[in-house]
Amino acid sequence: MGANIKVTIWNEHRHELSNEKVAAIYPNGIHTAIAEGLEGASSVKFALLDDPQHGLTDEVLNDTDVLIWWGHMAHHEVQDEIVEKVYNRVIKGMGLIVLHSGHFSKIFKKLMGTSCDLKWREADDKERLWVVNPAHPIVEGIGPYFELPKEEMYGEHFDIPAPDELVLISWFEGGEVFRSGCIYNRGAGKVFYFRPGHETYPTYYDANVRKVISNAVKWAAPVNRELPVYGNSKPLETISEK
Amino acid sequence: MGANIKVTIWNEHRHELSNEKVAAIYPNGIHTAIAEGLEGASSVKFALLDDPQHGLTDEVLNDTDVLIWWGHMAHHEVQDEIVEKVYNRVIKGMGLIVLHSGHFSKIFKKLMGTSCDLKWREADDKERLWVVNPAHPIVEGIGPYFELPKEEMYGEHFDIPAPDELVLISWFEGGEVFRSGCIYNRGAGKVFYFRPGHETYPTYYDANVRKVISNAVKWAAPVNRELPVYGNSKPLETISEK
Amino acid sequence: MGANIKVTIWNEHRHELSNEKVAAIYPNGIHTAIAEGLEGASSVKFALLDDPQHGLTDEVLNDTDVLIWWGHMAHHEVQDEIVEKVYNRVIKGMGLIVLHSGHFSKIFKKLMGTSCDLKWREADDKERLWVVNPAHPIVEGIGPYFELPKEEMYGEHFDIPAPDELVLISWFEGGEVFRSGCIYNRGAGKVFYFRPGHETYPTYYDANVRKVISNAVKWAAPVNRELPVYGNSKPLETISEK
Amino acid sequence: MGANIKVTIWNEHRHELSNEKVAAIYPNGIHTAIAEGLEGASSVKFALLDDPQHGLTDEVLNDTDVLIWWGHMAHHEVQDEIVEKVYNRVIKGMGLIVLHSGHFSKIFKKLMGTSCDLKWREADDKERLWVVNPAHPIVEGIGPYFELPKEEMYGEHFDIPAPDELVLISWFEGGEVFRSGCIYNRGAGKVFYFRPGHETYPTYYDANVRKVISNAVKWAAPVNRELPVYGNSKPLETISEK
Repeated sequence: MGANIKVTIWNEHRHELSNEKVAAIYPNGIHTAIAEGLEGASSVKFALLDDPQHGLTDEVLNDTDVLIWWGHMAHHEVQDEIVEKVYNRVIKGMGLIVLHSGHFSKIFKKLMGTSCDLKWREADDKERLWVVNPAHPIVEGIGPYFELPKEEMYGEHFDIPAPDELVLISWFEGGEVFRSGCIYNRGAGKVFYFRPGHETYPTYYDANVRKVISNAVKWAAPVNRELPVYGNSKPLETISEK
Repeated sequence: MGANIKVTIWNEHRHELSNEKVAAIYPNGIHTAIAEGLEGASSVKFALLDDPQHGLTDEVLNDTDVLIWWGHMAHHEVQDEIVEKVYNRVIKGMGLIVLHSGHFSKIFKKLMGTSCDLKWREADDKERLWVVNPAHPIVEGIGPYFELPKEEMYGEHFDIPAPDELVLISWFEGGEVFRSGCIYNRGAGKVFYFRPGHETYPTYYDANVRKVISNAVKWAAPVNRELPVYGNSKPLETISEK
Repeated sequence: MGANIKVTIWNEHRHELSNEKVAAIYPNGIHTAIAEGLEGASSVKFALLDDPQHGLTDEVLNDTDVLIWWGHMAHHEVQDEIVEKVYNRVIKGMGLIVLHSGHFSKIFKKLMGTSCDLKWREADDKERLWVVNPAHPIVEGIGPYFELPKEEMYGEHFDIPAPDELVLISWFEGGEVFRSGCIYNRGAGKVFYFRPGHETYPTYYDANVRKVISNAVKWAAPVNRELPVYGNSKPLETISEK
Repeated sequence: MGANIKVTIWNEHRHELSNEKVAAIYPNGIHTAIAEGLEGASSVKFALLDDPQHGLTDEVLNDTDVLIWWGHMAHHEVQDEIVEKVYNRVIKGMGLIVLHSGHFSKIFKKLMGTSCDLKWREADDKERLWVVNPAHPIVEGIGPYFELPKEEMYGEHFDIPAPDELVLISWFEGGEVFRSGCIYNRGAGKVFYFRPGHETYPTYYDANVRKVISNAVKWAAPVNRELPVYGNSKPLETISEK
């Protein structure tokens, strides 16, 4: 684990092309800002919705240790066939980091088994993310909390399965709370949902956000072991009654 | 909770009609044997794969507090539209008890978000189910363990999310272990996976198996509260009157 | 489960006797206010710090299904021998509901295995408690959230083990969050930590607080089964290698 | 995390001196055999029960990233004051790996908050440990299962809190199962309980056992961050600049 991690950043990349405010913040795309902040990856590739096969060819997926996912307005345009391929890679060990509005992506809903619905508000709320699991490597180097001066609000109830480990809880100026850093194992793969990152705010330039994503990449890298074998299986022992 | 629970038992009901050995054990179908052993339900309905809409009309589903599911050889024949309706009812509070080979049903895989694959063997293994959570209401009246003299073996790795609560672990004569009583919350609904019940054994006449299913029905009944509201949300009052 | 639940409410009962403000709110003690709001108990006893054996004689403990605990300024005066007795009863199935400043009680710290420390502030913060597990019986009849207009603030990091199930998260006016409804199994016993209830506020007259405590009493009642047996154990089977 | 891990192995070291069979297997002590199998530590120290302060002086503890603990017949001889020091170091981030009969050590019971009791038998049972969480770094390089030809049996019910993550389940020849690889966070520290290692068997020479312990050391190393701050706390800025 750790030393040699190949990352692919998937981005919908539509808001940046159609909305001047977003384009001003992320002139080279959200994926580029995330990549600039990433530490600990041995290589970083980009894959975009409008690339052939959304950029997620077999070659790319098989050469990816950790996939980062940002999507929002075009979840429905992601082909089911590609979702299935990403899903199979996660079950076989690829790490997956789902950001912000990716909560409603096909891949996240498929891995969670719930609606992944939530409350939301675009009103420049201050967000403060509190660390509730100080032992977890995903918060290495992070203080007791960190703040984002303006963000979209996401509020409970967030319809997810109870996380295997809950690492961060957000406080919002408008009166809500949210489980903002959620860990899941799925098959041989690790999944991290991380809330911040609305397209109209410069969140992916924030040092704490970048640190959490970098930590998550290291944590989510595949464990080096044979995959489980399933199916019909001969007995290992025979029993006699005493 | 508890007093008035409407149960629907869904059964594929194919093995009983096509296999003499199974027909001899369950002449009136697995669903009937389960119903005979059920305590604590105020009403019990049956729904079968070959009924119109698989017996799961809106009327039936809306009038069901807890759905019990047995399927095996014809998972693929269950229409996606019906699966979607069952899924929506679970998220909105209906309890779901998935039995044995139902691990590969469309509804269970959709709720889990994993492959739900496992090892298996039909070789008359003895199974011994150990209670690992003595505080849980699902094992009320159950001893430290109970035995099934002959059963199909299911072995780890079982590709499920880590259960919210793990209640039973099976030991098998041939050398395997299995997480046999697994609890999940999904939305406002409760899900219980219970391993035993291969069609060629009289498992659903076993007193302990019946007790666990009866306990699970009481535990899985919906909690009486308004459903969560999602979507765009105004800020709340954030200041106390001082 | 459920029908016949004997509750004992333990109260330190010192603030009410020494502080005029508290005496005005709880003239008959916090324990009486909790008892008045309790639904679903078949009997309610009181036990106070200054009673002989703190009111927790063997007779009382053995006749208690669920123990509610409120303490604050005199945790250190609770005798270790009595704590040990309460602990043994929990491991053997007695439910325990720990309220507010009881987070620092000897019994809660012993059951948690952590420091149970937290941040706090007495400044009339508004508290809003959000339901994050809509399937749990402890929030039956509770809306998406409920508010307490003024309360002591408790903030993260709260040094507890990750709850087996997290049911409520608090938002505070001053900028903090807190895991306010936390569920644990310990041995055959169920434990619920519920945050609200500072002695200078009329919190135990609040309808939602009373509903949560009443629900918790029903949930925490012991499951009717034999206790686990430990120690030296003969083999159940004999193995031969095939 | 990872690169520079200082390990201390604590061993009771009594069986090896008083029992010829054990002395023949572990002539230089169990601690030496564990140390020989350890990969990934930058330094390894030993601390023994009969050393002054059991070898766990402030200097040693403050210079330890991960503490491995083996004890059995003399748990009661470990001074409470030293247990308290080890406990405080775990809460502040030191990793702790508790082996086999260490389940009944003072430090493990204190961290768990339960009796930690179990069933046991010394009868040369075959043990087979199954991986139930294929995504966890503690099973890197481990196959679907591994076997120990003869071991002491430990059986359920094991009176521990539900593990934060369950990694291994044991099958025993005599008919029992056991949760054999259990993960807990406590404060800023990580705790791993690993079942195998009865003193009369050469278990700590087994390649798989050594691999699991080495993986656990890497996983349990402290995360590099400031410790949480507790106590009285002023309100934070609650309004974004608009």
